Amino acid sequence: MFRFILSDSVRVVSSICAKNRIFLPTKFSTHFASKTFHPKMTISAPADVDKLQDAANRMRISSIEQTCAANSGHPTSSCSAAEIVATLFFAEMRYDVKDPRSASADRFILSKGHACPILYAAWEEAGLLSRDQVLSLRKIDSDIEGHPTPRLNFIDVATGSLGQGLSCAAGMAYTGKYVDRSSYRVYCLMGDGESAEGSVWEAAAFASFYKLDNLVAIVDVNRLGQSQETQLQHDIDAYVQRFAAFGWNAIGLEDGHDISALLNAYANAKKVTGKPTAIIAKTLKGKGIDGVADLNNQHGKPVSKDKAEPIRALLKSDKPANWTIPAPIGDAPAVDLGIGAIAMSAPPQYKMGEKVATRQAYGNALLKLAEANKRVIALDGDISNSTFSNLVQKKLPEQFVQCYIAEQNMVGVGVGMACRGRVLPHVSTFAAFFTRAGDQIRMGAVSFTNVKFTGSHCGVSIGEDGPSQMALEDLALFSALPASVVLYPSDAVSAERATELAANYTGITYTRVSRPTTPVLYTTDEKFELGKCKVIRENPADTILLVGAGVTLYECLTAHDLLSAQGIRVAVIDLFSVKPIDAETLAQQAKRVGGKVLTVEDHYEAGGVGSAVCVALADVANVRVRSLCVRELPRSGPPEALMELYGISANAIVKAVKNFQ
Amino acid sequence: MFRFILSDSVRVVSSICAKNRIFLPTKFSTHFASKTFHPKMTISAPADVDKLQDAANRMRISSIEQTCAANSGHPTSSCSAAEIVATLFFAEMRYDVKDPRSASADRFILSKGHACPILYAAWEEAGLLSRDQVLSLRKIDSDIEGHPTPRLNFIDVATGSLGQGLSCAAGMAYTGKYVDRSSYRVYCLMGDGESAEGSVWEAAAFASFYKLDNLVAIVDVNRLGQSQETQLQHDIDAYVQRFAAFGWNAIGLEDGHDISALLNAYANAKKVTGKPTAIIAKTLKGKGIDGVADLNNQHGKPVSKDKAEPIRALLKSDKPANWTIPAPIGDAPAVDLGIGAIAMSAPPQYKMGEKVATRQAYGNALLKLAEANKRVIALDGDISNSTFSNLVQKKLPEQFVQCYIAEQNMVGVGVGMACRGRVLPHVSTFAAFFTRAGDQIRMGAVSFTNVKFTGSHCGVSIGEDGPSQMALEDLALFSALPASVVLYPSDAVSAERATELAANYTGITYTRVSRPTTPVLYTTDEKFELGKCKVIRENPADTILLVGAGVTLYECLTAHDLLSAQGIRVAVIDLFSVKPIDAETLAQQAKRVGGKVLTVEDHYEAGGVGSAVCVALADVANVRVRSLCVRELPRSGPPEALMELYGISANAIVKAVKNFQ
Repeated sequence: MFRFILSDSVRVVSSICAKNRIFLPTKFSTHFASKTFHPKMTISAPADVDKLQDAANRMRISSIEQTCAANSGHPTSSCSAAEIVATLFFAEMRYDVKDPRSASADRFILSKGHACPILYAAWEEAGLLSRDQVLSLRKIDSDIEGHPTPRLNFIDVATGSLGQGLSCAAGMAYTGKYVDRSSYRVYCLMGDGESAEGSVWEAAAFASFYKLDNLVAIVDVNRLGQSQETQLQHDIDAYVQRFAAFGWNAIGLEDGHDISALLNAYANAKKVTGKPTAIIAKTLKGKGIDGVADLNNQHGKPVSKDKAEPIRALLKSDKPANWTIPAPIGDAPAVDLGIGAIAMSAPPQYKMGEKVATRQAYGNALLKLAEANKRVIALDGDISNSTFSNLVQKKLPEQFVQCYIAEQNMVGVGVGMACRGRVLPHVSTFAAFFTRAGDQIRMGAVSFTNVKFTGSHCGVSIGEDGPSQMALEDLALFSALPASVVLYPSDAVSAERATELAANYTGITYTRVSRPTTPVLYTTDEKFELGKCKVIRENPADTILLVGAGVTLYECLTAHDLLSAQGIRVAVIDLFSVKPIDAETLAQQAKRVGGKVLTVEDHYEAGGVGSAVCVALADVANVRVRSLCVRELPRSGPPEALMELYGISANAIVKAVKNFQ
Repeated sequence: MFRFILSDSVRVVSSICAKNRIFLPTKFSTHFASKTFHPKMTISAPADVDKLQDAANRMRISSIEQTCAANSGHPTSSCSAAEIVATLFFAEMRYDVKDPRSASADRFILSKGHACPILYAAWEEAGLLSRDQVLSLRKIDSDIEGHPTPRLNFIDVATGSLGQGLSCAAGMAYTGKYVDRSSYRVYCLMGDGESAEGSVWEAAAFASFYKLDNLVAIVDVNRLGQSQETQLQHDIDAYVQRFAAFGWNAIGLEDGHDISALLNAYANAKKVTGKPTAIIAKTLKGKGIDGVADLNNQHGKPVSKDKAEPIRALLKSDKPANWTIPAPIGDAPAVDLGIGAIAMSAPPQYKMGEKVATRQAYGNALLKLAEANKRVIALDGDISNSTFSNLVQKKLPEQFVQCYIAEQNMVGVGVGMACRGRVLPHVSTFAAFFTRAGDQIRMGAVSFTNVKFTGSHCGVSIGEDGPSQMALEDLALFSALPASVVLYPSDAVSAERATELAANYTGITYTRVSRPTTPVLYTTDEKFELGKCKVIRENPADTILLVGAGVTLYECLTAHDLLSAQGIRVAVIDLFSVKPIDAETLAQQAKRVGGKVLTVEDHYEAGGVGSAVCVALADVANVRVRSLCVRELPRSGPPEALMELYGISANAIVKAVKNFQ
């Protein structure tokens, strides 16, 4: 028994209501007669249905056994999705079991990552994983982890922090439709609980706006969260309404365990053009597990192993079937994002002393990278005219994705686009607003993603817009990611090179750029490296080492001149690379000047330049570090006045140097 | 000319469509005949309308003049909202101009914070602000900042990072309806661009779930974002559909500059019970400014001062009117959250050596605080059974708010609840998931909020669930907030006291608690202080100082014993207070042992314990610090094995101590 609730059917009935001139945004599906609006169906042969049901039950048993072997994990969340996953893997998707990351294969994203036992069971059923492998769930020497990560070749993005999969899926679907122009489709399995996450609705708006008809989301509405019932429980209509209101073809299934209903919903999705499809499947958490199914307080707990026996009794065969899985169509083009493939179309072109904002240089570099490689794509959150990513938007519109004011989704889309090496996404916004996507960025790191982040408008030097727009914790955010690179260029030449270096590093990078214009310091042929700073003022008589970056580097230079005039010599380092940090040069220079180091930054103390330098020099004997940074919540005002007020100006540096005994 | 698109009218028409058994989630309002479904209206007297229109135009002029004086700011975003704000302030809300923070007054939240000139203009019109004051916009010596902050007594929450106001408003409305049980109403003015933020939909779901009929959101749909058109442009119906699908009474206004239409919409909102109201107002960006209105590329730019003249020509009076503003009803009770008002109902009760997880101790302390003060309220994101906030949920359900899996909104609701000192919100979830709400937490700091955050399941010591669930950057996140306090208790006694200390600090606090059980180290009468560590192993023969916290403190203690057995003495500090840090004791102990310090933490390097200690000791001569921390992306496995693998175990400490030359 199943029913469809089809938003698409609205086209059929719109004429009825148009006569009555009504507007009906709220619930009507209670009045819905299922027979009336079934789409045209090609009911699968009963044999297929039985075979798929058998697979779903084998996968249930495997999920139970995996979590028993691990003595932890989520069998009930797995069991609610057994038929959804079985039908997708063995009657819908095209892929190559021997090459799960094939560029042309359909994508599957398990947004409700805690249900991964059912995914591992699907790959066991498909023949990729052995029984021993799936039973190694959650062991320290196994990549069959507690939540999926791309350590496994059939996982594109790590999931487990809920509500993120749909953004990644949308990024993959966008890439498939507009970049690869390939026929692969993208399937995202979501939980109902996670649909409370706003990022889901950011992704929903994005996917309909870009008409991603190659994207199918299936919501496994099993009614129960971790600690209690979800907000909407089994109100399938409410989910259908929400997705429909967000521009999706939304299909409600009264029984999400009904194989035929699922197959028909997938078939319907394929017919719908110009919009993504959401299949809202009413399921039972722990479906099939006697005394556990549909009960509260059963989240994330193994069940006793004998609970598998009644399910086993239903099986026609306890061996995986010989599935004939349709091969990928093979129409995704080859992509080269490897070494040497990412270079700017022209070197930096600035005159020494010319005043250029590093954010503008970022835009220039981004355009040059995009010109040189079609797979360099810029993502924006409606501030491209501030970050200068609008240079790409104007000149190469096909390499620009407007993500609107939805930073979480923007990052998730970027992570999705980067998968399988299809695209080198450059995500830029105000640096402060990356905090909005902190969790997506964190999960990007868990996904070993290769997204390039650039944040503009850092620090108090943005001026009058005030603290809500000032990034003063962005270095902390990005430095606290495993294997991240954090660059902080000070002039236009180094900003272009930072952008290029970041593009050529495989992994998460963050480049911090500034709003005010600053003079060009380097000749256009200056070489920059990750993990290398620049000593830009050096004299045998130096008594203190100043370390600056961005706007504060110029304050250091001014202080250097003011102090020199008074006979006090100071060395000045342009830090450039916050992570990795050039501990060697810092230590060498610190010792050379006698051990006194003063860092100056337009950032809060924790996790910033000073803290990075302190850590880098912590084990060096006879070195002391003091830091000038923003130590309280700033306010609106002119940039120079704010730098003075918060003690990171040349005057403040002069004073600190003189006081440093 | 105006029209209503009323989701509520659905009740009227449902019978029509029920006959046809249809489900209509998508657009119909194009077929809508406005006359048919107008609600019953009490059209305001023409004189009032004219007076309000005059006020709106004076406020427009003021907005133009403010931004001209500042030579920056957002006049066009202000002008689209002039009638909305004028009608709210002078024909709808109850408040006291002399006491804007009156507990019983209606609340107004300008979610589109960049439009603050229109808000300042409203308070000028109301008589609170002088002309000179509003013309000090964005000056460094003025609290009339570029985006609103609570430095001003008529601002409850800072805005400027978009899409956050509705969560705060929902928190205030929840407090008004369920905690204060007062008649004040809450009005939130949003932009259309910001409604792309998922947090808006988290808030929308929350507000309808809790039937917040005292909440009105007005969306100023002016069609234009910063860099280009919004996704939905002027598709009012789409907004109406989305809010309706999220359970709101949604009203579309064809002309959001129509005073009567706005007044009637507010009147309709007051009549609707059991759901919040969204008024979707079609407006023009820069309305009234010739040659600017409704044009792209006019965001955040002052216009020439003479653009005010045509608007001035429309005025009947250029002086603020003598408004009779209805006083607050005065039914919000007095609340005491001051010194001495927040204490646990009983001291910690544990036996030395008893194994208790600090997360459980947090739950125990939270319950005792809640028992002692009705205004202590716990907010959860569907993991109360993991954080132990379910102790409050079970025993004091009225002091518990289930926010479901929507951390951004949970934090925003907390910030809203804390406003005007009504509630002391305790927000807890897995520590990793606070990254989801990084921007809301950041803006909470800009709001000088008094929310208490507690994150459980930190570090690799959570074990098998894997990296997506492990917080390894939470200390970095919370330390990089101005004026924040960050506590990291190691045993149950200190965890209870940390919770109590945090509750008694005014400002953002973060308490990091752990999943595994750990032995009780302190007697129940041990005193703890913010900014004070505990030296728990000290011997004149010590040669190294170990600094641990949480699970690593026990590794330090084990290492201490292993080393002692080999004749190597080490001191051990329980850091407890990461920020403020006890620099004095650390320095004193570091010097005492000869200058070698080894920190050990279940956190990444950047922004964690080691980095805080490095910064604290950076200016102390002859001290060297080394750090053991998690240096790569971890994986699933048993806690002890992971701590071993990532080098933060007792064995790793022993080795590091021996290698520290």
